[in-house]
Amino acid sequence: MNWQGLLHHYREHLPVTDATPALTLHEGNTPLIYCGRLSEELGIKLYVKNEGANPTGSFKDRGMVMAVAKAKEEGSTAIMCASTGNTSASAAAYAARANLKCFVVIPEGKVAVGKLAQAVMYGAEIYSIEGNFDEALQMVRSVCSQLPITLVNSVNPYRLEGQKTAAFEICDQLGKAPDILALPVGNAGNISAYWKGFKEYHEHAQTGLPQMRGFEAEGSAAIVRNQVIEKPETIATAIRIGNPASWHLAVEAAEQSLGKIDEVTDNEILQAYKRLAKTEGIFAEPASCASLAGILKQLSTGEIPKGSTVAAVLTGNGLKDPDTAINSALMKPVLLPNNKAEAMEILGGVFS
Amino acid sequence: MNWQGLLHHYREHLPVTDATPALTLHEGNTPLIYCGRLSEELGIKLYVKNEGANPTGSFKDRGMVMAVAKAKEEGSTAIMCASTGNTSASAAAYAARANLKCFVVIPEGKVAVGKLAQAVMYGAEIYSIEGNFDEALQMVRSVCSQLPITLVNSVNPYRLEGQKTAAFEICDQLGKAPDILALPVGNAGNISAYWKGFKEYHEHAQTGLPQMRGFEAEGSAAIVRNQVIEKPETIATAIRIGNPASWHLAVEAAEQSLGKIDEVTDNEILQAYKRLAKTEGIFAEPASCASLAGILKQLSTGEIPKGSTVAAVLTGNGLKDPDTAINSALMKPVLLPNNKAEAMEILGGVFS
Repeated sequence: MNWQGLLHHYREHLPVTDATPALTLHEGNTPLIYCGRLSEELGIKLYVKNEGANPTGSFKDRGMVMAVAKAKEEGSTAIMCASTGNTSASAAAYAARANLKCFVVIPEGKVAVGKLAQAVMYGAEIYSIEGNFDEALQMVRSVCSQLPITLVNSVNPYRLEGQKTAAFEICDQLGKAPDILALPVGNAGNISAYWKGFKEYHEHAQTGLPQMRGFEAEGSAAIVRNQVIEKPETIATAIRIGNPASWHLAVEAAEQSLGKIDEVTDNEILQAYKRLAKTEGIFAEPASCASLAGILKQLSTGEIPKGSTVAAVLTGNGLKDPDTAINSALMKPVLLPNNKAEAMEILGGVFS
Repeated sequence: MNWQGLLHHYREHLPVTDATPALTLHEGNTPLIYCGRLSEELGIKLYVKNEGANPTGSFKDRGMVMAVAKAKEEGSTAIMCASTGNTSASAAAYAARANLKCFVVIPEGKVAVGKLAQAVMYGAEIYSIEGNFDEALQMVRSVCSQLPITLVNSVNPYRLEGQKTAAFEICDQLGKAPDILALPVGNAGNISAYWKGFKEYHEHAQTGLPQMRGFEAEGSAAIVRNQVIEKPETIATAIRIGNPASWHLAVEAAEQSLGKIDEVTDNEILQAYKRLAKTEGIFAEPASCASLAGILKQLSTGEIPKGSTVAAVLTGNGLKDPDTAINSALMKPVLLPNNKAEAMEILGGVFS
């Protein structure tokens, strides 16, 4: 039970050398939870990989621990990213742990401060730029090419190396790969990393290969539509990306695995989000629930056969997005009189 | 790595029978993280037990899985608690998982809806009562004594049984008990449960006994002052309790272990909260940081000797309290011109 993190546990599968610092916040080793009630309702064997249990509350920690450890190994004293969400939180946490500076660049006036509170708590310095998100990313790439600052956006190749460990863990936890791996698709790095991981582990230990089913949100379904979405819109902010960085790799993962990149609506995402919490007691970020929404959709179309073993990746913790929870929850309490007999009558009625 | 939860792993130490359902959200097995930077700064060996990694984001899951499993075993179809925070979230999640109803009773008009969003997401039904928190608890006890509803507030004895497993884990992770165990004290159930756990494990495996150092918030320091606090006030809402339910047990734990119940100010708590995040990349609920604040205080008084091995319990995830993070973080971004040369000059200055 004394888990020492990804760089330690999967060292032989990662670009870890004797010079790589033993950086960890004990990321990884996240639960693969069997969903008994949903499995029975749906006629499949459903597992969820609960990545919200990672140190900063999302799967990003897997790639970030690798990227930040390599930055430190290479003598960098600072890291930088353009991000408004889970990436910046993860970058800031590992930078703090590794005693590096962390700079986050955001488009001016387009980001609610609450989204950045976690990164700021970890000590990140926030810069805003007169421009849009793409311009922020361009600025970051340009700065990192000229100053001794390491870029940790997903173009950093160590990110995918770290992220692939989630596939290893699913194989270790199930004993083999599932029939189907369902996950949300935003920037498309994660589906690419999982596919890389499943292939490597199969070569290493004959664990089999799943069909990769990736789900974009309808309002930002660039890969499904085969076109860049200029103004992506979805409630699932963590996958609100109109021009995925790992587009080509995601298509390859779907094709090679006989899988599919599909889309789900915001309403389907929200329904899945609520159903998962109420039926299994698991509270994931809305974007995470694109995976379950996609499974429900493909069960109805017959694209997922009954009896399949399906693993759904829940990419982030539900606590990351309190606003959607508050807006989704009907929270008008029923008023009870402070009189035991009367209160008992009301509550007793619930059981009749 | 295939952790199957507390009832499975610590079965022989818990009131688990063949009739107890195998309930789990894979709670427990939380990281014990070595804080290298703080250890060096403070001259001790500091570990933190990161209970925010539990399924609903707090240590409450340890006791709740036990209490809800026993409720199910005994044929109950519903559970109930008076709570406005972590207890209600945990109760609701395990009730959903076990297919039981969950009722939460709160004092009318005294609870911000956001605090309940997590429990409502998990499907809890919320009732408010014309009265204060004590009256809500009295109502819950009265209702549960007359209807087939199981009370899961901390007076349910299975709660402490489950919670004691955190002490087992620390011993398993360190190889023995630490010299000092520091933790926040609110309702005082947790310090009581840890002490029970350390004693039982020592009897079982000669793991040694730590000194128990419990820290109340100054504005709700009932045990330290030896008087009920009628209107407890502290930013650390999770320990804002003026009349701890396990008062006697907490005093006993401190006395038997040659430890102490002490107090820390809100300012000390907030300083520790920020320092932990910025120095180690660990973001815990403010109340959690009463443990680190207490360690800092007792290092300055000499009550914690240099060189000690100290484990600090971080009871909840920082994401549980976004408001405090937003208010603590100085988030005015520095504006960069969208001009690479000028931006470079500003950022380059950071390195000079």
